[in-house]
Order: sequence, then C-alpha cells, then structure tokens
Amino acid sequence: MKVKSDQSCEYKRYAFACLLCSLVVNIVLSYFVIVGKKCSLSWSQSAAAEAEAVALISCSGHGRAYLDGVVVDGKQVCECNTCYHGPHCSTYIPHCPADVNSGDPTFLEPYWMKNAASSAVVVAGWHRMSYIFSDHSYTSQELEKSIHRLHSIAGNAVTEGKYVVFGTGSTQLLNAAVHALSLDNSSTPSKVVVSIPFYPAYKVQTEFFATEEYEFDGDVSSYTNNSGDSVNAIEFVTSPNNPDGKLKKAVLKGPSAKAIHDHAYNWPHYTAISSPSDEDLMIFTLSKLTGHAGVRFGWAFVKDKVVYERMSTYTDDNTFGVSRDIQLRALKLLNVVLDGDGRSLFKYAYEIMKNRWESLSRTVALSTRFTIQDIAPSFCTFFQNVRGPSPAYAWLKCEREEDEQCYQVLQAGGILGRDGTLFGASSRYVRLSLIKYQDDFDQLLQHLNKLVLQEEGATRDNI
Amino acid sequence: MKVKSDQSCEYKRYAFACLLCSLVVNIVLSYFVIVGKKCSLSWSQSAAAEAEAVALISCSGHGRAYLDGVVVDGKQVCECNTCYHGPHCSTYIPHCPADVNSGDPTFLEPYWMKNAASSAVVVAGWHRMSYIFSDHSYTSQELEKSIHRLHSIAGNAVTEGKYVVFGTGSTQLLNAAVHALSLDNSSTPSKVVVSIPFYPAYKVQTEFFATEEYEFDGDVSSYTNNSGDSVNAIEFVTSPNNPDGKLKKAVLKGPSAKAIHDHAYNWPHYTAISSPSDEDLMIFTLSKLTGHAGVRFGWAFVKDKVVYERMSTYTDDNTFGVSRDIQLRALKLLNVVLDGDGRSLFKYAYEIMKNRWESLSRTVALSTRFTIQDIAPSFCTFFQNVRGPSPAYAWLKCEREEDEQCYQVLQAGGILGRDGTLFGASSRYVRLSLIKYQDDFDQLLQHLNKLVLQEEGATRDNI
Repeated sequence: MKVKSDQSCEYKRYAFACLLCSLVVNIVLSYFVIVGKKCSLSWSQSAAAEAEAVALISCSGHGRAYLDGVVVDGKQVCECNTCYHGPHCSTYIPHCPADVNSGDPTFLEPYWMKNAASSAVVVAGWHRMSYIFSDHSYTSQELEKSIHRLHSIAGNAVTEGKYVVFGTGSTQLLNAAVHALSLDNSSTPSKVVVSIPFYPAYKVQTEFFATEEYEFDGDVSSYTNNSGDSVNAIEFVTSPNNPDGKLKKAVLKGPSAKAIHDHAYNWPHYTAISSPSDEDLMIFTLSKLTGHAGVRFGWAFVKDKVVYERMSTYTDDNTFGVSRDIQLRALKLLNVVLDGDGRSLFKYAYEIMKNRWESLSRTVALSTRFTIQDIAPSFCTFFQNVRGPSPAYAWLKCEREEDEQCYQVLQAGGILGRDGTLFGASSRYVRLSLIKYQDDFDQLLQHLNKLVLQEEGATRDNI
Repeated sequence: MKVKSDQSCEYKRYAFACLLCSLVVNIVLSYFVIVGKKCSLSWSQSAAAEAEAVALISCSGHGRAYLDGVVVDGKQVCECNTCYHGPHCSTYIPHCPADVNSGDPTFLEPYWMKNAASSAVVVAGWHRMSYIFSDHSYTSQELEKSIHRLHSIAGNAVTEGKYVVFGTGSTQLLNAAVHALSLDNSSTPSKVVVSIPFYPAYKVQTEFFATEEYEFDGDVSSYTNNSGDSVNAIEFVTSPNNPDGKLKKAVLKGPSAKAIHDHAYNWPHYTAISSPSDEDLMIFTLSKLTGHAGVRFGWAFVKDKVVYERMSTYTDDNTFGVSRDIQLRALKLLNVVLDGDGRSLFKYAYEIMKNRWESLSRTVALSTRFTIQDIAPSFCTFFQNVRGPSPAYAWLKCEREEDEQCYQVLQAGGILGRDGTLFGASSRYVRLSLIKYQDDFDQLLQHLNKLVLQEEGATRDNI
C-alpha cells in the first residue's frame, strides 16, 4: 500500500505539475491573444499589408517602391534616385551629372519614414464620395483648424481675422489671386509685376491664363517712378525669395497697390522668422513645409471679403474645390507636424538645410570663379536665437568674365541647375536646388568640389 | 483505505479532467495566436485601426462618420443625410423637403462598403512626395493602363491612338479643352456653344475664365444656318445629355467645327451603349463612374497632338498636374471595378438606376400635371440585350398652364430640384437628381406621390 500510496502521490504531483504548466501556458497564450486582438483588423488589413509589403522592397537607400508603381512579376519595381539604377538601385552610374534643377522638396522624406506610424492614412473605399462636406462647403473644418494652430506655433503669419482659401497646390492659388485682384472694372488690364530675380511660374502662368483683365508685365522697378496710386498693378512678393532667399517687401506702395505675398518658404526651415507676416493676401504651400509636393495642397489667407469670394469662385469653377483626398492627407500630415510641441519637423528640417548650406559655403569659399548669395545671421523668434542661413536654393554666380553662360559652365562640370535667365536675371546666375534627396546634394557637392579644385587660383591660394 | 483510495481516484479524475480542459484551452489559444499572427502589421496598424473605428460609428444607415470629420469628445461625429439628425442620425425631420438638386453620385456608396477590403488604400507618409513620377511625367502609367482596360470592357470609347490627359475632375478638363481648341490665332474669339438644355457649368466656367481667345455664346442652333467652315465655334456635346439623358451628336459639321464630347454619363449605368464613341476629344470622370465626386479625377482622350499638348500645358500651369494622391486612389478604385470580369459595378449601378427610373415613371404615369422625358429601350452592347432607360436625372415638365414656374411648384410640394432655366430651357422644366443616396430618392418619391395624389385628374382617372 505504501508503494501504491507513493505512486498515487507521485501521480498527483505529476498531474499537478502538468496542470500548473498548462495553466501557465494558458495565461501566456491568453496574453498574446488579448494583445494580438489589438491588431485584429477586418477590411483594412489587406490594404495595410499591401502597403507594408511595398515599403519593404529594398532599393538600397537610393530609391523607393510605391504602391502605384509599375508592377513587374507581381511586384512594384524600385524607382531609383538620379545617378542610381538596377533592380535595387544599388548601381551608381559613373560620370552622372547632379540634377539640382527642380524645387522637389524630397529632403524631408526621411522625416516621414521616421514618423511612419503617425503619418499613414487609411482611406476607406467610401470616404467622402460627395462633392460637399456636411457644412455644404468644399473645405474641411478640421484642416483649417490645424493650419491656424500651425501658424501660431511657427509664428510666421497673423491668421486671425482673415479668410482661408484652399488650393490644389499654391500654384492654383497664385492665378486665382491674380484673377481676383484684377477684377476691378478698370478699362485697362492690370499689370502683373515682379522683382528680379523671380520664380519663373509667375510669368509662365500669368501669360498662359491671361484674360482681358490682366497681363504679365515683368520688372516692378519700371513702375517705381510712378506714384502708387496711378499704377494699376499686381505685384508678386516672394519672401523669402525664390531663388535667392532674400526677405522681400512690396515695392509698390499706395492705396491702390495690390500684392500677392508668396510665403512658400516662410518657415523656420529656410529663414529666420523675425515677426509674423500680416499681409492682405498671403499664400502658403504644403510642398515646402512638409515636403509633399506631390499632394498638391496650398492655402491662402485673405483679408478682403470680395477678394476671398473671387478666389473661392475661381477654385470652385476650376476644380470644384480641392480634392477631399488631398484634404484628408494634408490634415494627417499637419497633425503629425503639430504632435507634441509642434517643433520637431522644423528642427529636423532646419538642421538639414543649415548643414547643406554650410557644406556648400565651404566649397564655394575655396573658389574665385563662383560665388553664392550672402545671407546674414538673424534673430529667429521660433528658435529664440540668432541663427545662420538655411535657404532652399543657392543663387550661384559665375564671376569670370568668360563664364557669361553660367548654366553651361556648370553643365560642363556635371551640374544641372536652373538658368538665371528664367528668373529674369543675367545668364551669369544659376539656381541650385538644395532641397532634393541627400543623393542629389552629395552629387552636387562632389561635382562642385571638382570644379573648384580645377581652378588654378583655388588650388594655389586656398588649399 | 477504501475511502482514501476512492478519494485518490476522484482526485486523479479531477486532476486529469482539469489537465485535459487546460490542454484544450491551450490548443484553442494557440490557434488564435497563430491566426492572429497573420494580421501582425507594423507602421500601418494604428492608421488602420483608426479608420476601422471611425467606420464602426453607428449613424443608423442615414449618415456616415469620416476620418476627417469634426471631432467631439475625442470621436468623429456622424454626418447625417438630408432629413435626418441626432447624434446617430436616427431622427427623421418631419416635413423635410427632398433635396434632389445636385448630381452627387452617392447612390454608389453601398457598393464601396460591400467592397471595403479591396477598395481601401493605405497611404504611407512618404508616398510620392515628389512632383514627378519616375518617367518624369506628372501621370501614373498604371492608372492610364487601367483606364484603357476599363473602356475596353465597357465598350464605350475607342481609346487606341489617342493621347490621355488627366484632370482634377473633368471640370478642369472642360476649360482646358476650350482653351486648347481656341488657340488658333484667329482674330476673333471662338464662340463656345451648347445645345439646350445643357449642363450649367459650361456657361458659368467659360464666362468666368474667358480670355481674348474665346467667349460663351449660348445656343448652337443660331449657328446652324451658317456653313460649318465659316463658324469659329467650339461645341460642347454631352452624350448622354445632362439633364435629359438624350444621346447627342455634334450639331456643327465641317472641317473647322470643333467639339468637346463630355461623356460623363456614357457608362452602362445610365445608358445603352450602342457602339464605342470615337470622337476627337472625349472627356470622362470618375465621379459618375464610381460615384467618387469628392476625389476630383477626370481624363480626356485627345486625337490631335497639338490639342493634347495645349491641354497638358493647361493642367500643368494650373495645378502642376493631378495630385499623386488622387491618382493613387483612382487607381485603387478602378482596379476594384476591373476585378474579376470587370462587370460587377456596372450591373450593380444599372440595377439601381433602372429601378429608380421605373419607380419614378410609375408615379409620374398617374399624373397629368407632370411628365418626364421619354427614353426608348435600346440594344446595349455591354449587356448584350435590349434594355430600358436608367438615366441619371429626370427632366420633369410641369404641363399645367398655370405651372409656369415649375421649380416653385415642386418646391411648394417639398421637392428641391434644379430650375430648368439654369440649363437654358424653359422654367416649365426642373431637373431631379436620381443618383443621390437612397434616402434622397425615397424622399423624392414620397413627396412626388403626394403631389400626384393631390391632382384631381389623377385621383379620378387613374386610381
């Protein structure tokens, strides 16, 4: 009986131990089931998995696969940055020129990859099918609120007491503004003027869409001898300026002078914020703020009600307002910018732009052949300190007498900039974009260094 | 000992039973953990969960909550259909008029809710930040391919050998086409003409954006006495027509006659497809095809290269092409339409439209006061049978002599249509939209039935 009793005890112990183990396993598994529950999704799951699979396609850090990219063998292919090719963008193309022509703000891509979770948007198949929002407008109230909050954090614009117009990119708003400001029953067309150097789209767009109410008339300085009152002109004021990053004020004064303040670059990334801009018509764009040029979203603050209504009519008759998908995406992105203290994007972007400017400046400092614009350090209300320059573009000048065609000089040296003549300036100038991918900037520096090292003067005097 | 042994047996049995239960639980939990694993997502998970949470907000089938809707107490609020209110849109507003004014194609919302999984899109924070696609264009190749496939399934347009222009809604393309066709160095502006009744936006838009090259000139019939050659005119041809659903051909003939074929409604939902349209300039829109008016996407097929280039320049200078987000969403939606044999959306949409038309016709048949347009059954190459009418709008006429202001007659009866005079027609006509939510259609029928029942003639002769 002793044996049997012992055996029984033994069994009991085994059984108890097994039960205990099993219960522990139960608890552990229950935990995973409960935690797992959090990720249990229904209709959105396959779209999410699809997006993550595309994001995992390796393009060696020199390219990217996109959900709507060309599909080969059932998989989206890598779209490589300039100077890289191959199925994984891993092959560098030797002697490839640096393409720093466009203002593609892709330098901010890494920021969005770091903030992947907060910046993703899931759009349901039935999302906002209607033309209108519930308040019968074409515009999202939540997006408008976020825009106001953003400006109050950046301190770059007085938005209170002004109407807001949304645009399919600021591009649409530029012409909407010209249109709105020109409708004053004047017998002669309004003259649309700029100060040189100026963003080429002003000329191209104004000439393309010209009506009987307005026409492009180039340089504002030809008007400065007239009194402001008699001038029937609309002035584009780009501050900070594209291409040279200079802070600008309207040249034309007087009660009848009209100005469109293009503040695309008026963010702490690119310039010291001295005080909030408080102009009658100010235009901003998501493109240069968050880097999402492809989304096509811009907004304008307009003081005058009639001008606001005309601009709204323009966007309504042109495109029935701004796509509800664009507005949803912009809202999500701006809310990421506003996360926490709302300063992280600005800090990140400024650091990159400042470093790029410093690198470029070091190279140009070795040269007597090339110069770039001078921007003085200045106190920034956003950073609460005196900060150095961090412009979006370098406005490079070829100083040698024989280098009159600066674009060609740089092109021969493997740098594709944008010809100064397109900005209304001399062909001695070229705009170099500093806001593209790191790859593009690295290639620019590499080619510029080579050019500078070829200078006799540079090698003798400075190295 | 017997008792003890029995007790021991009992214990063993209990222990064994517990162990068995626990092991079964283990197996079940393991299954959930393994199955749960399949949904393991990383960065897209919270966005997906957020979208699903919004989709779960109950609005009683009479409204919808949206991701970018107004947030109250941390949750998006319901946006209610017309005539419903309350936090869950569960309260019907008595004596509420039927709003059948706009062409909001929300009748297709249930289709997208049924196809929730395949139609969802997850947009990564870094999705297509650049202005350009990898081929340096502003347009998605994959989207263009899907559009071609779609037309070949619907059999509604010959797309081979034509250029494609994308637009921010077909609205943008309408004016782009006018602009492109008017640039012929003529000394007098091109006359933009229409046949009555016509879609009001042609007039509103053409007048708003008029340049020195073109002007709106109303009814095409005033030109039919001239020879086509001498007429410097651009004709809008809407087929099927908005508002009356009639199939139209260009009125102006001859080598210099120019026409813009607006084919917004040229889909099997709304009309029998007799043969693929093969016009020089044809415009389509996502809005009336999939019901996504809010996305703002349209496309044009253009035969002439110069016209194509001018239209492209228009969209480029106006909005830098079409938002990459719009293109991604359109691609996803069109690919759902193309799923399987690519016929399911058309069948679904046709059934609804046919049923609505039949219901409306039954009511109007009881009336001597109101008539609607007559559309003869016709052979449809898509359905391969003779099919009855299913137009997007009813073009209602008030027949009584005293009912000259038909809009007001209907308004007094609780129906808000769109006044015939806006379409260039008599005030005896009103357009009633049949493509809105089922709620809107139900309310229309309810009010119309009431109006018809009030007719003396109807009650005496027909009931």
